[in-house]
Amino acid sequence: MKVECGLDDVFEVTTHKLQQGLLLTTVGSDGGYNVMTIGWGLVGRLWREPVFMVAVRPSRHTFQLVEETNVFTVNVPSDGMDATIDFCGTVSGRDHDKIAERGLTALAGRRVRSPILEGCIAHFECSVIGKSRLNPELLSSNVHKTCYASGDYHTLYFGRILSILKDA
Amino acid sequence: MKVECGLDDVFEVTTHKLQQGLLLTTVGSDGGYNVMTIGWGLVGRLWREPVFMVAVRPSRHTFQLVEETNVFTVNVPSDGMDATIDFCGTVSGRDHDKIAERGLTALAGRRVRSPILEGCIAHFECSVIGKSRLNPELLSSNVHKTCYASGDYHTLYFGRILSILKDA
Repeated sequence: MKVECGLDDVFEVTTHKLQQGLLLTTVGSDGGYNVMTIGWGLVGRLWREPVFMVAVRPSRHTFQLVEETNVFTVNVPSDGMDATIDFCGTVSGRDHDKIAERGLTALAGRRVRSPILEGCIAHFECSVIGKSRLNPELLSSNVHKTCYASGDYHTLYFGRILSILKDA
Repeated sequence: MKVECGLDDVFEVTTHKLQQGLLLTTVGSDGGYNVMTIGWGLVGRLWREPVFMVAVRPSRHTFQLVEETNVFTVNVPSDGMDATIDFCGTVSGRDHDKIAERGLTALAGRRVRSPILEGCIAHFECSVIGKSRLNPELLSSNVHKTCYASGDYHTLYFGRILSILKDA
């Protein structure tokens, strides 16, 4: 049973788990789901709205889905989901139905079409209100070296947080 | 007396105060300080670093300073600083020495050259590791209408958080 809550209720666990990996769920225009592990994300307020920002490389299957539907859900894994975090950060949704292969249960989103992963402990349902394609010339040389040795510069997706859910 | 702390220690007060206004301090290449009220900001992890993102319009005096020195400090005001928040969000640093006019005390930064405002209760010292100039074509029509009726599109500054300070 999931209930709505405030950012303060889940921020600490979200940033703590971010260092290990959060699970980003998306949906394509054909209704197909995908899930991908993310280690980066920013949360706060922008353009008068509560916002969760995620970064997705164009090479990812997730990129195509979020470009199609402009929604995403960030799920905070519970303890014991380490193997799922590793798996969803290693294989591509082009070749694998990661939700089925990991035995995850996708619940229908309440406010957006991207799904909620049942075993996770917190969920941010987001609708993209702006994005930014990184310009290599505006990044530090260290960011270049450590993150973009092979290009594939992230698009930043700024999602308006429509609901935050946690276990009742 | 300011001591270093973690993000969890100050996140709740930071996001709470963000809705009223935080104080962004910057320094120019000539060593001159400025302070500006911000109502938007994102915090989390990006490019393997803890990051605070702020948004500054090119028309602002702050824009010129952060472009010159690539550092900024986000200060979380204490209760009772409402008049300072209003003042620093209304007048420009081109015409006013806001720190002097409001009787604020600027302490030297510990990790960056932008100053810490003494009466505030938390401080994020940041060094810009990337920025992004917004592309109007990638924003929602509602963001356009509510935030950019007269253009002046923000540059997003992603600051690596070098230290977080709070009162001892």
